[in-house]
Amino acid sequence: MRQMSVPYYTSVQSGYSYVRQSKATTFVQNARSLLYHYGLTKNKQSFVAVIMVMLLIFWGFRLLRPPERLRQIVIITPTMQRPERIADLTMLSQTLSQVPNIHWILVEDGDAPNPIVPKFLSMFKIPYTYLHTTNQGLPCRGWAQRNVAMDYLRRNRGKFADDTVVYFGDDDNSYDLRLFERYIRKVDYMGVWAVGLPGNALVEHPLVKNGKVVGWHSAFRPDRNFGTDMAGFALNIDVIVKSNASFNLHCAGTMPEDCLLTQMKIDKSRITPFGWEGDEKEILIWHRKTEAAPNDKFPTNGYLVEDRRPPSPLCVRFKGIVYMTYPQALLVAKLYNTTEAPKPFTAL
Amino acid sequence: MRQMSVPYYTSVQSGYSYVRQSKATTFVQNARSLLYHYGLTKNKQSFVAVIMVMLLIFWGFRLLRPPERLRQIVIITPTMQRPERIADLTMLSQTLSQVPNIHWILVEDGDAPNPIVPKFLSMFKIPYTYLHTTNQGLPCRGWAQRNVAMDYLRRNRGKFADDTVVYFGDDDNSYDLRLFERYIRKVDYMGVWAVGLPGNALVEHPLVKNGKVVGWHSAFRPDRNFGTDMAGFALNIDVIVKSNASFNLHCAGTMPEDCLLTQMKIDKSRITPFGWEGDEKEILIWHRKTEAAPNDKFPTNGYLVEDRRPPSPLCVRFKGIVYMTYPQALLVAKLYNTTEAPKPFTAL
Repeated sequence: MRQMSVPYYTSVQSGYSYVRQSKATTFVQNARSLLYHYGLTKNKQSFVAVIMVMLLIFWGFRLLRPPERLRQIVIITPTMQRPERIADLTMLSQTLSQVPNIHWILVEDGDAPNPIVPKFLSMFKIPYTYLHTTNQGLPCRGWAQRNVAMDYLRRNRGKFADDTVVYFGDDDNSYDLRLFERYIRKVDYMGVWAVGLPGNALVEHPLVKNGKVVGWHSAFRPDRNFGTDMAGFALNIDVIVKSNASFNLHCAGTMPEDCLLTQMKIDKSRITPFGWEGDEKEILIWHRKTEAAPNDKFPTNGYLVEDRRPPSPLCVRFKGIVYMTYPQALLVAKLYNTTEAPKPFTAL
Repeated sequence: MRQMSVPYYTSVQSGYSYVRQSKATTFVQNARSLLYHYGLTKNKQSFVAVIMVMLLIFWGFRLLRPPERLRQIVIITPTMQRPERIADLTMLSQTLSQVPNIHWILVEDGDAPNPIVPKFLSMFKIPYTYLHTTNQGLPCRGWAQRNVAMDYLRRNRGKFADDTVVYFGDDDNSYDLRLFERYIRKVDYMGVWAVGLPGNALVEHPLVKNGKVVGWHSAFRPDRNFGTDMAGFALNIDVIVKSNASFNLHCAGTMPEDCLLTQMKIDKSRITPFGWEGDEKEILIWHRKTEAAPNDKFPTNGYLVEDRRPPSPLCVRFKGIVYMTYPQALLVAKLYNTTEAPKPFTAL
């Protein structure tokens, strides 16, 4: 019983207790006591208040100056009906609503838009475009959805500035807010960085020599042309718009990121790596997948939920597309090209 | 090939495109064009600016008024070294930093504090206390950690107001910001609400009749005294402080929430249910568990990561404590009470 006899409040006693109070609260409290200390009555405090407010005037003038122009970030997110989506989308929207000057392109995996997505987004001040598409006989990892988003950019190029950056950000990942300001917002042509928890590694990242990207440190097929994860890079909008690159069956046998970037004829010497310097390298984006095994027979009594949509046989078969050749992929597409009607949205 | 011939931009053409722009940006743009339209030159605009700034003065006076007092929320979070923690903690901190007047008590599952937690919290203006404890021979689902946090409240009761609310919020859950303002902040004695994805259901929630809680709709043991999930209730601080309730081996055979609340002798007639009215009942909190199966043999090259700490044999054995009796639990505790030295934190 040795272990159980350790008092469980050692931490409190041994000083490993970190307590912090908001600095602003402390400042106002201190200022007020000081004023009382010097005998300032309520009226005199009002006088001080007027002086402080005069200072606000200068601040007011600064407000009227046009703000420094921030490069716009377009985020492309394929999204799909599943029980965990509302949970993931809630946290993600709360994070993205803190990022200025973004435009969020969400593409529903389905043959109709899902009212839950605009409903969610209406709670936040995030400018967005909501599209939808079926999988069009492609693998079901957002391929067709990202194609639709890229096509939307090509057809609406005029709405975006020359230096707009485009980023593929899934709705179940974890995003550190610094990713947007320190990395994505600084991308001129193409930027790359580390991704946490991509599949079966703790981290995968670009390999950098003399400031230039010379390859990737990745657990799966490290010899790829572009060994990056979907969340590990961002591109200038014109790299996408001026190519007709897409996720398609010719990507069989490769990884989709590699397939897309190769079609775009990326000039590797112009890639900017981020976050690779220093002793304590930080990861600002993690691949995340939420576990959930809910029993959808259990009544939900009017609460807003989403059911899991069972994957189509084609989706299941195409999970192995990285091991197929193009003719094999074509054959599979033909074999399974039945009516893939998705189960409609149900708010029980 | 019928399906593949559907043009994938139907969504754009058929008008299912939702685009929004920040209202503030639009307002400033419109105001500026209007001023130009009426011939206001830059100098005249400055004059208008002065008037607008005068309006700021009144706003400034309001700032000096003491703000309306918000009831404080204490959030108790057991936290544990694992590869997904940094990802989960990043998103959670970004969410909690938007909640005013909270105090976050984090308790590390380990025999030492982990520098990664204060490092993380220093980035945000969230007041917090960081403690730590081993599992003390208890099951490893945060039992000992929550005990330490409750003990901290008992020993530091004076630091918190009478109407402070205490909430058990795990670090891997998904929190809608409205949970804090609409539910938790309004709890006088005890409040309860629905939880999404708790184990194997889409939702579990309190059963309400004539505004009173009469039971729980839960998939597992619905006949429990308190069939709520840990994230489904909040308590006035004195309900905790004035009891000596804890998670202990006498909880064998019950669910921990039920065991704790029964010890606290909760007066069921005083429980306030939230979010149970209306046609479209919303879930504002979801149980979430992040999937990750990383290979920790793969080099991490100086990036900041956390390893998975293998569970102790006692932890594994105590997974079944809901099916044990107290004597059985005691026996297991004795059998496995070996040195449970946790693997130290490694930032490779």
